[in-house]
Amino acid sequence: MGQHRVVIVGGGFGGLYAAKALGRVPVDITLIDRRNFHLFQPLLYQVATGGLSPGDIANPLRAILRKNRRARVVMGDVIGIDAARSVVKTRDEEIAYDVLVLATGVRHAYFGHDEWEGRAPGLKTIEDALEMRRRIFRAFERAEVTSDPELRRALLTFVVVGAGPTGVELAGALGELAHKTLRGEFRRFDPEEARIFLVEGAGRVLPTYAEPLSSKAQRRLERLGVTVETSTFVTDISDGVVTLKRGEEIETIRAETVLWAAGVRATEVSREFADAFGAETDKVGRIKVLEDLTMPGHPNVFVIGDLSAPPTQPPGVAQTGMQMGAYVAKTIRARMAGKSLPPFRYRDKGSLAVIGRGAAVADIWGLRFNGVAAWLVWACIHITYLIGFDNRILVMIQWAYGYLTYKRGARLIGECTDDG
Amino acid sequence: MGQHRVVIVGGGFGGLYAAKALGRVPVDITLIDRRNFHLFQPLLYQVATGGLSPGDIANPLRAILRKNRRARVVMGDVIGIDAARSVVKTRDEEIAYDVLVLATGVRHAYFGHDEWEGRAPGLKTIEDALEMRRRIFRAFERAEVTSDPELRRALLTFVVVGAGPTGVELAGALGELAHKTLRGEFRRFDPEEARIFLVEGAGRVLPTYAEPLSSKAQRRLERLGVTVETSTFVTDISDGVVTLKRGEEIETIRAETVLWAAGVRATEVSREFADAFGAETDKVGRIKVLEDLTMPGHPNVFVIGDLSAPPTQPPGVAQTGMQMGAYVAKTIRARMAGKSLPPFRYRDKGSLAVIGRGAAVADIWGLRFNGVAAWLVWACIHITYLIGFDNRILVMIQWAYGYLTYKRGARLIGECTDDG
Repeated sequence: MGQHRVVIVGGGFGGLYAAKALGRVPVDITLIDRRNFHLFQPLLYQVATGGLSPGDIANPLRAILRKNRRARVVMGDVIGIDAARSVVKTRDEEIAYDVLVLATGVRHAYFGHDEWEGRAPGLKTIEDALEMRRRIFRAFERAEVTSDPELRRALLTFVVVGAGPTGVELAGALGELAHKTLRGEFRRFDPEEARIFLVEGAGRVLPTYAEPLSSKAQRRLERLGVTVETSTFVTDISDGVVTLKRGEEIETIRAETVLWAAGVRATEVSREFADAFGAETDKVGRIKVLEDLTMPGHPNVFVIGDLSAPPTQPPGVAQTGMQMGAYVAKTIRARMAGKSLPPFRYRDKGSLAVIGRGAAVADIWGLRFNGVAAWLVWACIHITYLIGFDNRILVMIQWAYGYLTYKRGARLIGECTDDG
Repeated sequence: MGQHRVVIVGGGFGGLYAAKALGRVPVDITLIDRRNFHLFQPLLYQVATGGLSPGDIANPLRAILRKNRRARVVMGDVIGIDAARSVVKTRDEEIAYDVLVLATGVRHAYFGHDEWEGRAPGLKTIEDALEMRRRIFRAFERAEVTSDPELRRALLTFVVVGAGPTGVELAGALGELAHKTLRGEFRRFDPEEARIFLVEGAGRVLPTYAEPLSSKAQRRLERLGVTVETSTFVTDISDGVVTLKRGEEIETIRAETVLWAAGVRATEVSREFADAFGAETDKVGRIKVLEDLTMPGHPNVFVIGDLSAPPTQPPGVAQTGMQMGAYVAKTIRARMAGKSLPPFRYRDKGSLAVIGRGAAVADIWGLRFNGVAAWLVWACIHITYLIGFDNRILVMIQWAYGYLTYKRGARLIGECTDDG
């Protein structure tokens, strides 16, 4: 046996689904996370644009795992791993494992331009989302009080970098905000004056989706007033000015708000993990694993979710984490029964992106559709996967309400970056 | 006339109700606030204890006043008033007024012990509530990882200072948290071990309420595991230790979490206001006004809400702000018609405090009751007064849900004090 103590680092989709799937396996589970909650990241853009509150998409890990008496949740930072002794070290204790599951995910990255971070926040954590929310709504507020028309124009200009699902969803939500939600709320300008640019290096938005969906998504975005700039690269972000390059053409845009939705990189701690087991990382810091998601030479150490770089790289979506988490649990159970499992295989359950009220594009089992139908599918999938979120019905009601009214109530501007 | 430009400083109950009540009066309104939202302070303790998210009780001022085209909302700090020229200065502009309404409220105060602020946060702003929430839930998390039983005991000890409505509601919510919500979520201790002390200098809890309600409230609190210490004063708060004095008796309690619900003081800017008009302030910094809520010698300058100190001091509750706001609007309208109004008179609509699920005490029009009936009255009043909160039904559903399940979903612990 020797599989009875499973330590999981990270309570995102990968780690949490592993812990949940191990519920019926006779093992002791320790789930370690820096935060006390699981974050439903696919809806983070809703927090960034004032549609939902952080509490709506963050659920306490302890509450989710409460019923499994053999599961313990530890809130803390992992500061190191002693592979020789098979222990994970936090600031408070050493936790011994028979099986270790690493699932600490990725942060956004700036392609070597770390200096852009302060000027163009990304969207991976609650704090990121609150920072975006603060900047977006502050820009509108400042536009109301400035007497400088040029500054006002810059304050009403928003640039979203990267047109993957997050970028598309952010730009769509900004379009709705400017054209619907904020209508009639300002006296010195009309929110419809706001300009939203969505910048993408590839030749089309949603470049990983099937071609027809990209053009549908682009048309939807344009209807919401979003200017889509494809085959365009950001070459500089300085205070208030974004420089774009399209072929030989250079363009500068005065924009006070730049939102980053491009590029990922493994978190700091991943280096530590790789070194502890002598594993390799890929160019964005993900840890290279075998087909069964274990580190080479360490069959009891799994790397799953966004942090994992198996021979065939699955997409960086929630589904990948969920499927990998379930696979690890199955593997542990199989091993306890003296069996083994075939390699992990990602099953594509489809792609979805939401562009606005009743507007989405979907590609599910080869079936492509858009508009209200796609939006409804999106809504149903999100209901289903808001796992352990006891309030999922409430969140849905809130959505339905926002859907009908375009209202966005959760648009507090905090004193510093903190406002909840 | 000369009443056509009304400038209101502060978007709390006083300022907002004045602005709303002026909706049918032909005046231009400028409402200035440091924040972009109106905060429903009576429910702040629910945010502090994880029952509601900030977005549930904060509503954008612009959204509330959107339909009044003659009302403008300005987010900004007032940095001074030039009484001679009748202008209010913000960092961005000078705003001229014919009538000025000052309603910037109060902060909590430490009776000359400002050094306690960092050790015992108060509860007046969203940030205050998030800081309390962070401390409360972090204490439980740290209790799970520490190996020191003495420290664990201190981490599971909570002291609430002040047994007015806020203190009583906080202590009640903590009691529910420990005995109901968190049940079964920890592995190294039972949350029921948590000790909650409610400390009050007066001889009974809710000292401004009728005597029978105090004893009912105390019994309810005790049933939730709260230790009520009346006629007891806090003489010192140092890191991890609270010193209490009851008569001659001195007691020290090791407690990692101390929550402050006693004492108020006008905000910094009130000194500025008083000086600008040569007005006097009372010992907590409130501005002394005449019976019609105007500053002596300045019939066009009103001070309302918690900042106001009229000859007969009304209680520091939301009702006072609402009634004063409505009174100011009526006065302006009367003056425009060449009439005048009798002095402001506070109408007591009753007192209420909530102690837990289905438990409250109420004193309404001399009718005293408690238990579920009082709780229902409390719930109805809060529905009614969640003014302009388009989501009030949602908040009620959320409550009802929390009521039935004891769940508290909004208990994120942020990275610093910021977590939303």
